[in-house]
Amino acid sequence: MPDAPATLIALDWGTSSLRAYLLDAAGRVLGRRESAHGIRALPEGGFPAAFAEAVGGWPEALPVLMSGMIGSRSGWREAPYAEAGPAGVGLPELAAELTDIADLTGRPAWIVPGVSARTEAGPDVMRGEETQVVGTGLTAGTVALPGTHSKWVEVREGRIAGFRTSMTGELYAALSRHTILADTLSPPADAAEDAAGFAEGLAAARGLQTPGDLLGAFFSIRARALFAELAPGRTGSFLSGLLIGAEIAANAPEGAPESAPIRLIANAALAARYATALTAFGLASQTLPPDIAAAGLHAVARAARLTGETA
Amino acid sequence: MPDAPATLIALDWGTSSLRAYLLDAAGRVLGRRESAHGIRALPEGGFPAAFAEAVGGWPEALPVLMSGMIGSRSGWREAPYAEAGPAGVGLPELAAELTDIADLTGRPAWIVPGVSARTEAGPDVMRGEETQVVGTGLTAGTVALPGTHSKWVEVREGRIAGFRTSMTGELYAALSRHTILADTLSPPADAAEDAAGFAEGLAAARGLQTPGDLLGAFFSIRARALFAELAPGRTGSFLSGLLIGAEIAANAPEGAPESAPIRLIANAALAARYATALTAFGLASQTLPPDIAAAGLHAVARAARLTGETA
Repeated sequence: MPDAPATLIALDWGTSSLRAYLLDAAGRVLGRRESAHGIRALPEGGFPAAFAEAVGGWPEALPVLMSGMIGSRSGWREAPYAEAGPAGVGLPELAAELTDIADLTGRPAWIVPGVSARTEAGPDVMRGEETQVVGTGLTAGTVALPGTHSKWVEVREGRIAGFRTSMTGELYAALSRHTILADTLSPPADAAEDAAGFAEGLAAARGLQTPGDLLGAFFSIRARALFAELAPGRTGSFLSGLLIGAEIAANAPEGAPESAPIRLIANAALAARYATALTAFGLASQTLPPDIAAAGLHAVARAARLTGETA
Repeated sequence: MPDAPATLIALDWGTSSLRAYLLDAAGRVLGRRESAHGIRALPEGGFPAAFAEAVGGWPEALPVLMSGMIGSRSGWREAPYAEAGPAGVGLPELAAELTDIADLTGRPAWIVPGVSARTEAGPDVMRGEETQVVGTGLTAGTVALPGTHSKWVEVREGRIAGFRTSMTGELYAALSRHTILADTLSPPADAAEDAAGFAEGLAAARGLQTPGDLLGAFFSIRARALFAELAPGRTGSFLSGLLIGAEIAANAPEGAPESAPIRLIANAALAARYATALTAFGLASQTLPPDIAAAGLHAVARAARLTGETA
């Protein structure tokens, strides 16, 4: 079967990476490129060069749709946030608020809006995850997108009903590199040691009572290591379990049976870590396949009729 | 009245600073020196030079007593921890476990032990704070020593009955310099803006439910700033209030009337910040005068009969 013709270029352009997809009318991936040219990894004014490299050689007439931090204040052009009010945010609102950047790219090109929501703790924002969530095609359930700034998204009637962000991955990096724990944390010798340290960290997270207890738990890793109550090779995995456990306890739904598992969107290693943690909390999970962002961009492009097809 | 003769040299040698005191038999400060030669600010093998500078010109026959991170594994010589078991730790135990370092210093010199304790979250340790706490002469109450690694110490019958550490100051530094908040946080324009942001952060801390909510609250500072719900000049003070509020909620006693205030040991600016926060939590506090470490070292030296006087 010959390839169907390409109808869309989709860019998932985040903080630390840039993924480009060439898609046909059914959303099949005809071409895939990936680079480390995330918006934080570019020199001042580096957007045009990174863009040209990402799409170079692909048909110039094709519409280009982008999502992610490329639309943030530190991106190429700031795109608005679609607000997840009482009715949530769905494909129609995302498609209706595209930001045209043809003048910057020299091609027909747009950026998908981010989404904002209001939680008890104030406003919250996402850029890129909204496109992945619509890419799941899910009509109801919880989607977790772990990472630097983990997102926990509640989907109802095929719409983003609300979400919360947890600064888990970035806090792990800051603690392990820029505090006294930098002298304490060691990588595990093998997978068994990693699993043991991670499980201990999860257990410690479940024992915490108040938010401030977390500030004590960070220091306790050093004290445990000093008294050989935590093997050196378990320290880094322990911190990982402590943070992920606290994140799950604060954000996961009360229950998640096999019939309605928490959907995980992350690279394989991180998804496996969260799946292990969710199991420890008695919650079922299902890791979604890669290229969800491409599926989401394809869905938004169809809804916005960028590709000339009927949606 | 002529000065009484010096009988002791006392060194409060921590991570980021070195304070040296020349004391008479009553503990009065006859001489005071301060440098930035904390153990983390020294080149490899820099202890002898920093020591010589700190005590140079003071009588060579005088005993030298040191406390703080100088006795840690990364210090000059590792000193033991006195364990705060069911009976706690007091002056007698500290005085009984001095580590002799005359061979390193060329003078009669010792290091005070640190103290370890067991909390629900595992072991905990201090080095230097134990000496400050005995320096207060307090028989009962709560002593808070805010800072990089804040300590909350419970004193009963003049002994350290237990304590907990909170990685508050170091987490503030890591978050504000090494996460996305580095792009968000701005210093306050004036004291009024600082106070307003700090009060908002304290209020946010009181609204948190679970430990993991803190991971969301860190990110929410960025979201609040994006939506102008937090003025740029309030952001840094907000994070400070959020962390200090969480620390207090997790560690302060239920009540602290004017008759039994929480004793604060910190530099004037930090003590004022914690006093403000404690007031917001309905807790009375009292800031102790400086040179508490010198008073503590004097008390330990007397108890150990280093100065040839009767204790």
